[in-house]
Amino acid sequence: MDKFYMRRAIELSKLGEGYTYPNPLVGAVIVKNGEIIGEGYHKCFGGPHAEINAFNNATESVEGSTMYVTLEPCSHYGKTPPCAKAIVEKGIKKVVIGMKDPNELVSGRGIKLLEENGIEVIQGVCSAEVERLNEIFIKYITTKLPFCILKTAMTLDGKISTVTGDSKWISGEASREYVHKIRHRVSGIMVGVGTVLQDDPSLTTRLKNSKGRDSTRIIVDTRAIIPLESKVLNLKSEAKTIIATTDLADSKKIEKLEAKGAEVLVVPSIHNKVNLNELMVQLGKQGIDSILLEGGSELNYSALESEIVDKVISFIAPKIIGGTGAKTPVGGRGISDLKDAIYLKNIILSRIEDDIVVEGYL
Amino acid sequence: MDKFYMRRAIELSKLGEGYTYPNPLVGAVIVKNGEIIGEGYHKCFGGPHAEINAFNNATESVEGSTMYVTLEPCSHYGKTPPCAKAIVEKGIKKVVIGMKDPNELVSGRGIKLLEENGIEVIQGVCSAEVERLNEIFIKYITTKLPFCILKTAMTLDGKISTVTGDSKWISGEASREYVHKIRHRVSGIMVGVGTVLQDDPSLTTRLKNSKGRDSTRIIVDTRAIIPLESKVLNLKSEAKTIIATTDLADSKKIEKLEAKGAEVLVVPSIHNKVNLNELMVQLGKQGIDSILLEGGSELNYSALESEIVDKVISFIAPKIIGGTGAKTPVGGRGISDLKDAIYLKNIILSRIEDDIVVEGYL
Repeated sequence: MDKFYMRRAIELSKLGEGYTYPNPLVGAVIVKNGEIIGEGYHKCFGGPHAEINAFNNATESVEGSTMYVTLEPCSHYGKTPPCAKAIVEKGIKKVVIGMKDPNELVSGRGIKLLEENGIEVIQGVCSAEVERLNEIFIKYITTKLPFCILKTAMTLDGKISTVTGDSKWISGEASREYVHKIRHRVSGIMVGVGTVLQDDPSLTTRLKNSKGRDSTRIIVDTRAIIPLESKVLNLKSEAKTIIATTDLADSKKIEKLEAKGAEVLVVPSIHNKVNLNELMVQLGKQGIDSILLEGGSELNYSALESEIVDKVISFIAPKIIGGTGAKTPVGGRGISDLKDAIYLKNIILSRIEDDIVVEGYL
Repeated sequence: MDKFYMRRAIELSKLGEGYTYPNPLVGAVIVKNGEIIGEGYHKCFGGPHAEINAFNNATESVEGSTMYVTLEPCSHYGKTPPCAKAIVEKGIKKVVIGMKDPNELVSGRGIKLLEENGIEVIQGVCSAEVERLNEIFIKYITTKLPFCILKTAMTLDGKISTVTGDSKWISGEASREYVHKIRHRVSGIMVGVGTVLQDDPSLTTRLKNSKGRDSTRIIVDTRAIIPLESKVLNLKSEAKTIIATTDLADSKKIEKLEAKGAEVLVVPSIHNKVNLNELMVQLGKQGIDSILLEGGSELNYSALESEIVDKVISFIAPKIIGGTGAKTPVGGRGISDLKDAIYLKNIILSRIEDDIVVEGYL
């Protein structure tokens, strides 16, 4: 039953998606005599942790019960008092944990505090699922670099647009809604200036049935050639637009971009392109813990080559358009020998309406 | 339980794959008092039909029992006496049928004969599965044109080879073994001369644990430029090689090809290419009921444009190689507007080891 309750805790934790940043997603379930008597999740940054919400929602005394919590309870005073302490005070008998706190500075301390107070602790239940749940948090807290998700949408014959550049739409409506949900979850959306020139996207989060949170827009633009009238520079949005450029850019253009309200990041160049590794360091310093990389073909290759990509989400629409010159998800110079191909692992295959979705990790 | 027994009959029928041509795959199960007392399948062309094999294998008297058979029992004398008659004589009480005989000349006659003799007949159990099982037979008997399966293998970024042309291998070993199983099942394998020039394949059937049957090799070669030393012209194989060409070919080269033992089909041209629709008619006349189309990019587009393709099997390897010039599964002129894309339906999604397999119908 441990897995059953942990899965419920995972389910609960997901209700916080998009709001807990920079905290992880956490869910908690309190079980007594085989029944769930309390549930909670971390709703938003600054708010109570999952454990405390579960206590507050409990329908009876939690004394002597078991708590299932996706992440090791905290042992330190942050925005809120330590949960491990509250668990001890409430008289919880046993705590089942999905994963240890990935923050090396505090990892294991919560468990230690519980055990020192005679509470039985079981670790690693559904750990793979919990780690996937908090993949962004884990990467960022351990490296201070954003977790980068490369998203592509292609036809079954590998095209992201027709020979004439028509790309509206490759994937279906439900897939596009799913992408907006991911936009809502991440803290940055990144495209190359080529995509801005071709499609002039607004890169905002548009959800059907709820208010989405816009993420920081990051335009990789080595020479700062983005037109001033581009949508991303003329938006009403709570999130900012960053133009990531290099010293190859015209300083007057940079001033004009800043006058438009954009933030211009001048990053070292490599092979006359933005050094993406350097850009990740700078974005990480700004607190950007996650990036959805939405193409195009050239930037995707550079990102993979620079090894900044952590995860790939590929939407494959079951249609065929042909065309020798039509663009594919990943262009650039390319890899010559198949034995050097970049492999994805831990593949998850699913369907969203007609589309096929492949998720995998680098 | 009808579906359960029909599925067993389907399972049995598949044991005949590759050997029943030009007959369909048929399986039969005899059930008495809730137990299977006889099973059979059509093993090879000229041999007894599934129903007769089931009678022969029955462990007790079949009188009063129910027969499950994937296809309507035949009512005519062919290589063997009519099965419907045998069913009546054996005292079968009820017959459950997957699908009617698709051959319009005889369709329904077997059922009529059974019913006239007081046998209860139930039709259409697992019909979608049975139709899929005999998709080749159904297409060929109703149109006299081969059922054409377009097979592609690409990376997750839509490439069939690297920028330098390395294509060994995109898909994994198990996927390639599966392709050889399909080769064994179909009566023709078709490629363009470009593939011969690039890869010099032998296009034989190589199965791991059993002897494969080679299929007729068909090389689409508008100007008959195939080198005489190509593997497909110098094989030890029980199957022939057909060069499908046009009057744009040099007649001396045609003579040389024929001297090598190849059959040369001179087909009318369209836009200076082999008219694939005409080629299908000619191949159908030769008794070729099915073709596995194995690329490349140009021929695949022509085939889709000519609407000769019935089914697509796409292997997607979870790896990325990039490269702006790298070939994709379908090239050619391409479709300009996404709204005109060719859609696949009845998608089946599966995994073969690491690879993703998408099967769909035009």
